[in-house]
Amino acid sequence: MSRGDTFGSDARVELAHGAGGRAMHGLIAALFRRHLTDHELARGEDAAVLAAPGERLACATDGYVVAPRFFPGGDLGALAVHGTVNDLACRGARPVWLTAGFILEEGLALAELDALVASMAAAARAAGVAVVAGDTKVVERGKGDGVFITTTGVGAVPAGVDLGVHRIRAGDAVLVSGTLGDHGVAVMSKRSGLAFTTAIRSDSAALHDLAAAMRAAVPELRALRDPTRGGVAATLNEIADAGGLAVRLDEAALPIAEAVRGACELLGLDPLDVANEGKLLAFCPPARADALLEAMRAHPLGRDAAVVGEVAAGPAGLVELATAFGGRRVVDWLAGEPLPRIC
Amino acid sequence: MSRGDTFGSDARVELAHGAGGRAMHGLIAALFRRHLTDHELARGEDAAVLAAPGERLACATDGYVVAPRFFPGGDLGALAVHGTVNDLACRGARPVWLTAGFILEEGLALAELDALVASMAAAARAAGVAVVAGDTKVVERGKGDGVFITTTGVGAVPAGVDLGVHRIRAGDAVLVSGTLGDHGVAVMSKRSGLAFTTAIRSDSAALHDLAAAMRAAVPELRALRDPTRGGVAATLNEIADAGGLAVRLDEAALPIAEAVRGACELLGLDPLDVANEGKLLAFCPPARADALLEAMRAHPLGRDAAVVGEVAAGPAGLVELATAFGGRRVVDWLAGEPLPRIC
Repeated sequence: MSRGDTFGSDARVELAHGAGGRAMHGLIAALFRRHLTDHELARGEDAAVLAAPGERLACATDGYVVAPRFFPGGDLGALAVHGTVNDLACRGARPVWLTAGFILEEGLALAELDALVASMAAAARAAGVAVVAGDTKVVERGKGDGVFITTTGVGAVPAGVDLGVHRIRAGDAVLVSGTLGDHGVAVMSKRSGLAFTTAIRSDSAALHDLAAAMRAAVPELRALRDPTRGGVAATLNEIADAGGLAVRLDEAALPIAEAVRGACELLGLDPLDVANEGKLLAFCPPARADALLEAMRAHPLGRDAAVVGEVAAGPAGLVELATAFGGRRVVDWLAGEPLPRIC
Repeated sequence: MSRGDTFGSDARVELAHGAGGRAMHGLIAALFRRHLTDHELARGEDAAVLAAPGERLACATDGYVVAPRFFPGGDLGALAVHGTVNDLACRGARPVWLTAGFILEEGLALAELDALVASMAAAARAAGVAVVAGDTKVVERGKGDGVFITTTGVGAVPAGVDLGVHRIRAGDAVLVSGTLGDHGVAVMSKRSGLAFTTAIRSDSAALHDLAAAMRAAVPELRALRDPTRGGVAATLNEIADAGGLAVRLDEAALPIAEAVRGACELLGLDPLDVANEGKLLAFCPPARADALLEAMRAHPLGRDAAVVGEVAAGPAGLVELATAFGGRRVVDWLAGEPLPRIC
């Protein structure tokens, strides 16, 4: 075996691992290719060449910089698969390919990188996506933060499927697939300087199968979104803005775990602003809301689904909450940044 | 106009710009969408949905971390387009879509980000690719280095086209499309602590048009590679390893600008190890080498093309140079990392 094909348990990322020479070649062979085994990736060409998986394709990209990289219920590697798969699922696509670009900081323990790539590979296998292309860059110590991953996904959109904000109408029901804020609270519970104890685990999960079950049960489904950064509040504000519509939420209907509610009170956060990585917001005609809810609850990732509100014709851009005490309050965009690096 | 839609000349990236709330929405609207105007990107959905551009697709991803971000002949924004377009071109693909993931460091001047995104948009327009999806993350000051960009490209591979190392045969001619080492030397000339004066500009350019002209003139073309990190030496060693072949270069035939040769002597580098961002290595049957050379020289990006060597049956994995003085030396992989963050 040539130098670089194996690593000791205390080996760390060096600048040479990004230089294009023998060390990089060794890292790719000994670490990335050991976990990521797609035939096209293994060929080591500049680009993969593959048969188009359908006539209409969905394409999404996302960077992942979550700190810490390991948190209750997940890690950066799996999150980098789930997040991008979920972006494809929201347009009704079956995820097919993933690419992964790693930006490594000099000094990162190779054992940690190995664990993250193994987790990424397992998540990709479970989601049925092939990692077809990859890249590794290394930056000097102090110019990065361990590892950043950017994944890009390509999926096949079945004939006739058209999910998007443009299809949402006044009167549509708004549903969520489960409890809100789990991911953000799980990550925060492990932050240095903020560590608190909670039983909450990240909801990080691939949602394409749940999305497909929802489309099969209710073909009239209008739109799906995954409320990640900025939480449900930001996602609904985006939709209300883009669609020129209003959204009215019912506070009493929002599924929020007691532990998340407690942690948010402690931290002065609104659970509606906290990131989710395994939840869908869904919009459908009101007459189909019960059927959609039933399909969601029949799926393991939708057990706690609920109808949480409705779309109104206006005022355009307004998101409102009917409080449990009979009042109303505006649900604004998150202002500022209480929770950096949550995904 | 709402807060965040415009920025002062001294505005900087804040953590809130990555938080998913109003500030991020404003940054995307005022900066990214102003330059990147593809219809699907503008819709602001989680994923773009597009008609597949062909039956066979090429897919490649690359991270860009070059320091400094502006260098003679180019910048990080344009490089992030050219590098990925060139990876697609090496498999014979017409580049069609690009995605762009930005990882920004808190404190980056928005005016600089604006210039980089404008340059990226211009390079994409010139190359005929649409930026169909994007993402922005922000990391705390000291946890990144201004801006990192990861692009992913999708291209259409015409029927019958099959370029790759698997097609290279003993006896094949090896050509390069122009002078070697220009990019690496241009970037190094601007490094803090290393600044020297040179007239050399980066060769950063999109090569898909040159590649198409080469295929049209010589359908027997076997393989293309762009010798970026690690230079021609690393790329040929990869190919020799993967193909179980040897490559023999003729030193006297290598096109190297005098200024690059001089800078490399000064820095103790071999021009064969220095990165290129606008050059192709090409392999073709020996009887077609003259026709390929003619086609390359007829293209503005191939004016200085040359036949620089040949493929031999073995020893497998060996890259050798016949020196100008009649000797032979092994052209090894770059060892270590003399030139971090060159692309």
